[in-house]
Order: sequence, then C-alpha cells, then structure tokens
Amino acid sequence: MKKTVHSNRYAGKLFEQIYDYILDRINRGEWKPHEKLPSIRSLAMEFNVHRLTVYKAYQLLKENRIVEAKDKSGYYVIPNGDSFPADSLHDPIISAYVHESHLSEIHQVQAEYVLSKSLLDPNLLPNLYFSEYVKQVFDLYPKMLGTYFTVQGDQELRDALCRYFTDCHRFHLSADELLITCGSQEAMDLVARALVKPRDVVMLERPTYSTAIDIFRRQGAVIVPVEIHPYGYDLEQVEKLMQAYKPRLFYLNPTFQSPTGYIVPAEQRKRLVELAERYQCLLIEDDPYRDIYFGEEPPRPLFAYDTAGWVIYLRSFSKYIAPGLGIAIVACRPSIMNYLIKAKMLSDSGTPLVNQKIFLHYFFSERLQQHMEKLRIALTVRKDIVEQELSATDWQWNSPAGGFNLWVKLPETVEIEPLLSTCIKQSITFVPGAICDPLKEYKSWIRLSYSYLNEQLLREGIQRLVELADRGLKG
Amino acid sequence: MKKTVHSNRYAGKLFEQIYDYILDRINRGEWKPHEKLPSIRSLAMEFNVHRLTVYKAYQLLKENRIVEAKDKSGYYVIPNGDSFPADSLHDPIISAYVHESHLSEIHQVQAEYVLSKSLLDPNLLPNLYFSEYVKQVFDLYPKMLGTYFTVQGDQELRDALCRYFTDCHRFHLSADELLITCGSQEAMDLVARALVKPRDVVMLERPTYSTAIDIFRRQGAVIVPVEIHPYGYDLEQVEKLMQAYKPRLFYLNPTFQSPTGYIVPAEQRKRLVELAERYQCLLIEDDPYRDIYFGEEPPRPLFAYDTAGWVIYLRSFSKYIAPGLGIAIVACRPSIMNYLIKAKMLSDSGTPLVNQKIFLHYFFSERLQQHMEKLRIALTVRKDIVEQELSATDWQWNSPAGGFNLWVKLPETVEIEPLLSTCIKQSITFVPGAICDPLKEYKSWIRLSYSYLNEQLLREGIQRLVELADRGLKG
Repeated sequence: MKKTVHSNRYAGKLFEQIYDYILDRINRGEWKPHEKLPSIRSLAMEFNVHRLTVYKAYQLLKENRIVEAKDKSGYYVIPNGDSFPADSLHDPIISAYVHESHLSEIHQVQAEYVLSKSLLDPNLLPNLYFSEYVKQVFDLYPKMLGTYFTVQGDQELRDALCRYFTDCHRFHLSADELLITCGSQEAMDLVARALVKPRDVVMLERPTYSTAIDIFRRQGAVIVPVEIHPYGYDLEQVEKLMQAYKPRLFYLNPTFQSPTGYIVPAEQRKRLVELAERYQCLLIEDDPYRDIYFGEEPPRPLFAYDTAGWVIYLRSFSKYIAPGLGIAIVACRPSIMNYLIKAKMLSDSGTPLVNQKIFLHYFFSERLQQHMEKLRIALTVRKDIVEQELSATDWQWNSPAGGFNLWVKLPETVEIEPLLSTCIKQSITFVPGAICDPLKEYKSWIRLSYSYLNEQLLREGIQRLVELADRGLKG
Repeated sequence: MKKTVHSNRYAGKLFEQIYDYILDRINRGEWKPHEKLPSIRSLAMEFNVHRLTVYKAYQLLKENRIVEAKDKSGYYVIPNGDSFPADSLHDPIISAYVHESHLSEIHQVQAEYVLSKSLLDPNLLPNLYFSEYVKQVFDLYPKMLGTYFTVQGDQELRDALCRYFTDCHRFHLSADELLITCGSQEAMDLVARALVKPRDVVMLERPTYSTAIDIFRRQGAVIVPVEIHPYGYDLEQVEKLMQAYKPRLFYLNPTFQSPTGYIVPAEQRKRLVELAERYQCLLIEDDPYRDIYFGEEPPRPLFAYDTAGWVIYLRSFSKYIAPGLGIAIVACRPSIMNYLIKAKMLSDSGTPLVNQKIFLHYFFSERLQQHMEKLRIALTVRKDIVEQELSATDWQWNSPAGGFNLWVKLPETVEIEPLLSTCIKQSITFVPGAICDPLKEYKSWIRLSYSYLNEQLLREGIQRLVELADRGLKG
C-alpha cells in the first residue's frame, strides 16, 4: 500500500491536496495504468490554483514512482499491482479510502500456532454454565427480542455500570455519561468519527495498538507518535508535542499497554490530565486489559483524575467475558456524549438489547468473580511458559504485569518480515512490530500473544518460532 | 444548522475548501463569537494560495452572515446559537462534523400517539414463543457466547440466506457475496464509508428515507435528487442526471418506498440496471419492506436483474423479526465486498454471533411464515384505519400496497412546522415531509406511520391530528 502511505504522509498543504486527489483516483482505478493524466493546465483550472502548484504535485508523484512524465506529451500512470486490487479494473469502481488493516491480514491466516491474536482462548470461558445462565435472562425479559433499544444503551445496564465504576475506580459518573457500544472497535471508531476531521492532529503511542493507527488514518488524521517506555512517557516530550502540534486528541492505552504490556505510573496519570486540560487535547484512554493483572491491581484510570472533561474512557469487556456478545462502553462528559450518540445513531442505531441484558446479568454475577480469578492464574501460567521458552535466547523483553502480550526484541540480525513468511508456512503467526508503529519502524520487534493458545500449543509454538529464527540467522 | 448546510453546498473549489475550513473551526467553537479571525494574508500563507482566494472565501462567509468585516481591522465571527451547542463553549472542543439527524430528534420525543416511527408494534411479535425458542438455540450452540465471530458473518447463516435469496428472488449469489451487519443502518453506513468520498456525487430519491440523507452527507457527498412518482422514476431524467453528474451511486428504495410507499415497476427495474452499467453508477437497493405487502408480492429486486455487479442489495430483517436482534445483510460482488469487509473490520470487527444464530433458527422456522401472515393482516387493518379517518379530509395520498407509511399532502394553507409543535404538545408525533427531502421542500407533506400504534391509539391519534390541523387553519 505504498501509495496510501504517501497519501497519509503528504496531507495538508495545497499541492499535497492535489497530490492526494490524483493519487485517490489512481488508487480507485479510475485512472488506469499507462493512462494519460489530466494536463497541468486543466487541473490548475479545475482547482482554481496556480499551475506551479499542480506541477509540484506531479513532481512529487514522479518522485514516488506513481506517475511518469513522457517528454512534452504529459504524465502517465505507472502500473503498480499494490495500488488497487486487480479485479477492480474489471469490476465496478470502488473507493480505496478504506485503509488496509495489516493486522487483520495476519489474523486471516489459518494457523495452528496463533501467537498473533490478542484474544482469550475460548476454552478459558465458562461456556456451558453461560448458556444455562442465558436462559434465565430470557425468563427475566421474555419480550427482550421484541423490544427496541435506545442508541445510548440499556438504562438498567448503564445504571449498574455507573455504580460499578464509582465503586472500583471512584469515577464521578452518571448513567447519561455512559454509552454502550458493540465492542471496543466500535467505541474507538465512534470517537474517531465524532472528534477527528481530515488533517486534525492525533497523538498515538509508539508502539501502539495497530488498529488504532488504521482507524485514525481512515479519518484522515495526521499522526504524531509519542514513545512509551517501561516507566511510562517522557512527559516533557509529551508537553512539547502538545505545544507544537495542538493535537485534537491523544489515544493511549496506559494499563498493560498493547503491544508492550507497560503501565503508566499513577503520578504520570495525574500529570497527563493536567497537560490535556492546559493544551486542550482530549485523552482517549483505552482500558481493555485492566482486569487481567498477574500481581497487584493496576493504578486507577486517568478518567478518575479528570474533573474538566478532557478524558474519554473506553472499556471493553468482551475480551474476557463472552466474546460472542461484543460489549464495550465509552464514558465521557455530556457535551462529547451528544456527538457520540449522534454518530452512533447514524452508524447502527444502537447496540442490540439482548447482548446488553445477557452481559448485565453475567457481569454482576458472583460467578464472574470466580471466573476472573481462574483466568488470571491461567494467563499467568501461559505467560510464564513463553518466558521460560525465551529465557534460553538472547531476545529481550520486559516481563508484563498484566495483559495478553509480550513485546519482544529479536537480534537485529534477524529480519522479521522474512521470518513471518517462513513462520506462516509452518503454521505459526505473530505480529511484526512495524505494524504497531505509526512510523513503521521497530524492525526487530514482535508482539507475541499468550492468551489464545493452550499451554501445550503455546510451548510448541514458541519453540518452533525460536528455532526458525535461529535457522534464519545461520542463513 | 444553517452553517453546516452551507458547508455542504459549497464543497469543491479551492476558495470553498477555505470557506469550509473557517466554517468548521467556527462550528467547533474554536473561533468564538465576536472573535477576530486570521488575516487574509496569514491564511493565504498557511494554505499556500493567492490572497484573492481567501478573500473570496471571506466574502462568501460575509454573505452568509457567518462573519462580519469591521473596516480595516479584519473579519469577526457573528454570534449564532445554532452553529454549536452553547455548552461546547465551556466544555472540551468537539467536532461539528457529525451531521444532525432531524428524524432522530423527533424520535426522542416521548409521545402517546407515535405516528413518526416507521417501526413495528412490538406487540405484533410472538415474543413469548420467541424466548422459549431461543433457549433451544443455546442448547444447539452451547459454546456460542465464547466463540469469536468473523467480520463477514456466520457461515451457516450466510449459506442459508444464499439458498433463500436464490429460491425467492432468483439471485445468482454465493455466501462470499453476503455480509451480515448489525441492522440496516450499519449496512447503509458501511456502503457510504467504503464507496463515498468527500465531493463524490450521490443520487437520492426525493422524497427519501431521511437517515440516508444524513449518512451520505456525513461522508461529504454532493447530493443530486431524483423525483419518485407513484409510477416510479422518469427514466429519461435519471439518465440525464447520470450523464451530467457521473454519480458514484444511486441510493434507492424501490419497493414500498419510504416515505411514499410507491413501487418501481418491473420494467423500470431492468432498465435502471442497464443505465447503472452504462454510466458506471452503483445502485444501492434498500429493501426493508419487501415482505410487508398487502395484496400481491412486489416485483423482484433490481439485484435479480444485475449481471455486471452494479447493484448492491441491502435487506433488513429486524424491522419485523425481533428488532432486539438487529440483523441485516448486504449482497454485492466480491470486489466491493472486500472493501465492505475492510470497512466493517475497523468499525465493529463483526456482528455478534449470538444474534446471528438466533436469527438463523427463527427466520427459517415454520413459525415465522405464520407470523408473517398475521403481520400482513394486522398492518392492512391499521393502514385501513388511517385511510378511513383521513377520508373525511381533503388531504391527498396514494394508498400504499405495502410498507409502514402513508405519504400525505395537506392543504397548502396548513403550515407543517407549527402543526408539529402543536402536535408534540398534545403528545402526537409525525414526520414533516421536508425532512425526507434533500432540498428541504415538500412543505405541505407529512409521513404517517401506521406500524407502531395499536388500532385504538392509531385511530385516536389520527383524529386528533386532523382536528389540530383544522383548528390551525381556522387560526
């Protein structure tokens, strides 16, 4: 997707807008390989700009090997298999505005040793109990399936979650400040749609959850990365960036961060909220792993420190409670909630009631607490297995205190992309670090998820991975 | 939302982009009322354009009473309560990019006589039977809630629907050409996101389903309206428009159209598909009311006539089968499906499995067929009630052969907006025609839905509505 990347990097200035315009039409297959492109004069007229501006755009397209100039006769599209699916040449024109999700491409690979999925092993869920349980829910709400749901979410569920958040995290929250979404993806997407416009600046951690990169890019955001370290952020750098770029928002995952597993310490959380307020930069706090801790409970969410309404809190539950339900929440202040509700109204008109009611009754059941205990132990064991297997290598990582992932640095002599291809052939998948980086660097890093495979497959998978990496080294 | 409307109308040319840029910042509350705006010189530099271009943008903003010029000293924001919610002045900045959904505003009104909701009366659903039924589904799939779902949708459901569509409508369809979405809204939104880019031309029926206007506007589409008549479209006009505007797509609802209830005849359907192919304009066929016919079954969908892949078929089921489930489908050719799947992947990563499995087993049960029969009869009776009550008036409408709505023309002496305000005070809601018109005309028309109220409330509601309209006339 070389071209798409360019179209992201060069967003803003006028000649860049024209660059994007031309690029889009090529990516869509409206202007085909070898086809002659509009003249500088005609585009200058169409856009009502100086011809030099169009010239500048064409020069950049030339540099990027997207078009070629044939002396005197004009500019032509250079064929490039990547730029659009071959079939779109024969099929109806389609938009290339949907950005590729590289992670999802890896997820589509059918593999035995899935080290790429930051998802819970379904066998760790109390499925049978759960099904029996659901039947009781249907007795409680016999008309549930025939009931229309509200956009914001079931009142009973929002009330219950409100009490829950206030009790565990001392949130100051009312049910009106909670939105129920169909999973964390939708929550993130709604925030992006409601708050981010093309060319808005968005701060992202680096590395970060790669889908976040895709979602904010899809909104046309200009992305400013912020390093995350085992000790959190360099807050001076964060402040400098907020000063310099006036970002609309900073999407962060401060608790058992994906992919690193790092935790932003409590004192930094307080400070971040102050910075957000001073520089009017919303903080989007994504918190899916909070309950997956191996030792002590993590520090309170940033949202708990927020009084002026600069933090938007995303909490997914479906990662460990019935993925088949797909339930997540957004907590934020009314002025922003109004826009999220409008966005959701046009997106799916509400989360189905049945999922909300089932979730409500399960989440607040005693059974869940027992389930969570078992889950933490099971995941600790699986994490330990990976660390045991890696201990013999010279690979580097910080042992995570929670979450589903290990962020591992391989020797720089190992090339990750070729390794991934070899692994896939051997039915092993992992996530290359570059995918988690807005700058596409971290060439020696990979994300290993220990949440999805059972202990035996996990051990075998890691052993084979290490073996293939070593073999790669020896050539 | 005067300003937002302008920002839609003037999208495209360079000075219009700068106009939009300034307007957005004002709408977001970043540039506040009475605040001095950036100088022409500074904006010209920022955008790297000629100063005259910025001047032109400011002139237009002046004409539209969005800014005022104070001699020599520059341009200032004219206060306008509409342009952004007052609280956003004090609360964190929010984007005004989410377009208002006027329909949803009416739906938020709590009323006894709901004539505005084109939704089924929940009491017409076999709720009790349904929840008993669901329990069996959980016995069939005990691990359902712990199972991850795919983005495209459950294979078993897609296979079954494939057979169904092939049998009833003679579709040429494979399971790979079906996408399961969380309701019709999501289906429409995914199509818009995947296929429509800012400034793309989209054809809409006039009048149309007002949410469609909101959804395509949100994508920044330029909207070209096409009249729909009791006999269908003026195909010559459709062809002229396709020739003139090269629309990316035409969103249409040819069967018991909302709001009119009109049916596009079979011969026009065939011809429309030919035109779509000739002018490379995708047809988005929305078909939620197909099964709600009062007399004979409606003509086959356009999709059945499509061989080259220019029709995208949207079919919602939740309107009459368990609204609490929220299930709809998109049928289209693989090249487009790839983009829809990518769009959905980032939007909600898939429709929850539990909803799909429940739907699957209910939809293909004998019970549903009996249910549909009863439903058609019940709705015919309710439609007749409305028509009886209106027969005494000089209001005009075409009696619909299916669907949930009556499209009614009141005497031009009646002003609809004041009538709606009066009605809301009297706990009656209806949909003003202007909302269903991209051009915001149809000032004397209203949409009355007979699907949501029971017979008694329906009769009373219509009687009161007519009474209030008459009283309004007498002043």
